[in-house]
Amino acid sequence: MAPYYVGVDLGGTKIYTGLADTEGRLLSEVKVPTAAENGYIAVVERIASTIGEVCSRAGVSAGTVSAVGVGAPGPLNPETGLIHLAPNLGWENVPLGNDLQGLIQLPVLLENDANLAALGEHRFGTGRGVSDLVFITVSTGIGGGLILNNTLYRGAGFAAGEIGHTVVDPDGPSCSCGSRGCLETLASGRAIGRQARELIASGGGRGMLTQAGGVADQVTAVTVFEAATGGDPEALVLVRKAARYLGIGIANILNVLNPPLVVLGGGVMESGAMILELINAETRAYALREAYAAARLVPAELGDRMGLMGAIALAIR
Amino acid sequence: MAPYYVGVDLGGTKIYTGLADTEGRLLSEVKVPTAAENGYIAVVERIASTIGEVCSRAGVSAGTVSAVGVGAPGPLNPETGLIHLAPNLGWENVPLGNDLQGLIQLPVLLENDANLAALGEHRFGTGRGVSDLVFITVSTGIGGGLILNNTLYRGAGFAAGEIGHTVVDPDGPSCSCGSRGCLETLASGRAIGRQARELIASGGGRGMLTQAGGVADQVTAVTVFEAATGGDPEALVLVRKAARYLGIGIANILNVLNPPLVVLGGGVMESGAMILELINAETRAYALREAYAAARLVPAELGDRMGLMGAIALAIR
Repeated sequence: MAPYYVGVDLGGTKIYTGLADTEGRLLSEVKVPTAAENGYIAVVERIASTIGEVCSRAGVSAGTVSAVGVGAPGPLNPETGLIHLAPNLGWENVPLGNDLQGLIQLPVLLENDANLAALGEHRFGTGRGVSDLVFITVSTGIGGGLILNNTLYRGAGFAAGEIGHTVVDPDGPSCSCGSRGCLETLASGRAIGRQARELIASGGGRGMLTQAGGVADQVTAVTVFEAATGGDPEALVLVRKAARYLGIGIANILNVLNPPLVVLGGGVMESGAMILELINAETRAYALREAYAAARLVPAELGDRMGLMGAIALAIR
Repeated sequence: MAPYYVGVDLGGTKIYTGLADTEGRLLSEVKVPTAAENGYIAVVERIASTIGEVCSRAGVSAGTVSAVGVGAPGPLNPETGLIHLAPNLGWENVPLGNDLQGLIQLPVLLENDANLAALGEHRFGTGRGVSDLVFITVSTGIGGGLILNNTLYRGAGFAAGEIGHTVVDPDGPSCSCGSRGCLETLASGRAIGRQARELIASGGGRGMLTQAGGVADQVTAVTVFEAATGGDPEALVLVRKAARYLGIGIANILNVLNPPLVVLGGGVMESGAMILELINAETRAYALREAYAAARLVPAELGDRMGLMGAIALAIR
């Protein structure tokens, strides 16, 4: 009986679970709502039941599963399996690793979701065969993960890769982290939507407002990217501004780590080819010539399976 | 016969060479002017003669030297021994590694000087026993080196650790690297001196001018730190400004790498305890709480032997 591996991508809205063989080939997968409103224990039980389901769908006995990798949001300790804080789930200091392991009687490995996305792209995505890469997700927030010398680099407090909280404008807006001018406050999907709504509130942004059916509250980063793609000049200014800050943030990483590959994922990156081109140009303007020359900037390959495949890579390892 | 190791710290003004045993204990050392004006070949021969001299001073036969580590400025390739560019020495694409090895008939290892300073502090200085550290030198310029998982992390193009060229103010002054607002243009010794002279040119900075004997051209970062230590308010503003940018640059590194230790060296750091305290406070303000909590910011321990001890560490390895 070949060993099997389970990956679980635990998010604020859904639990995405898959079963794979030793090569990471997905044999079955299942997505269910997280239903965090039912409380922590209910979520743990729900995860356990998805694991049972992917096994039964593939006709595999749960006893032949060697390990379960779980990706979860928020600061957590992969060694103790403790999630320190997950505001989206309403959790604080929950021992998810131990509780799940107790329930399913299989070894459980827990890891930060952005780290797992980096691991997934390295093992199964666009980073295959590359020893070092920086993964950056630009979505509602901005996060990242580092693969250095073929290994996930976690940092002394398991907090490495927090690219969204590097300061790219010391006079920028305050950030929820306590600092100001963080990349996330200037270039995340949330920031881009906020900037558009501010523009509308001050009397501008008609094109974006129309794009959102005339309802200012409905204007999000998606609206901005759609309007920019349609040639709306005010939307283009917002997109260029975000790209400039992302370029500065990436250039700073290139100048410090000099990686051969930067993998860009997340909803904002999936808004079209324009954003990657703009980011690339800004990165080139701010990075050292030799650091820019050594690095390829590429889109992530695994789409919404990124976290899941990272969890499977974690389990296989 | 125990093996011996030679380290060479090659700078724009001096060649500093030492002989050590396997534990890195210095048995003899010698400093001579680089005399780069005599040309490349003369410098290579001068390095060779210092190696002969440290051996004879210690009564050691050159044949018992296992390896020679050489730290040199500028972008270079440690694998080929080629120095791409060393403006201070007037060199471009010189095969120092091969030429020196041919002359002395001993294995020669070449490495970037900031990387060697990191290696020196890790092996023999304040970073002993720590697996990961970030070394930052704040001197005329700003440079750095990374020790990750007990190994020098060089990056894909041997350009990792260029902390001086991370952008900390996108609207800051242009930098010689082609970018703008780099840490080096805002907080290096050169930048601090320039800011003081600009202040004097615009009619301010009387205290600093007096400190420099009334000669504006003689005002340097040293003047600024002396005046600030004496309580001069304008000098204090300049020191605080530099410390703020250094804090932002260090916070960005903490948020990306989450290291347990940041070692600060170089002339500016040796200007007194005030600068380290100010940098520490600014780093705390801009870093993620968990990243700041995990990191100690400490002064380098090896002083002007940092590069030499790094070169010896390179040779021993």
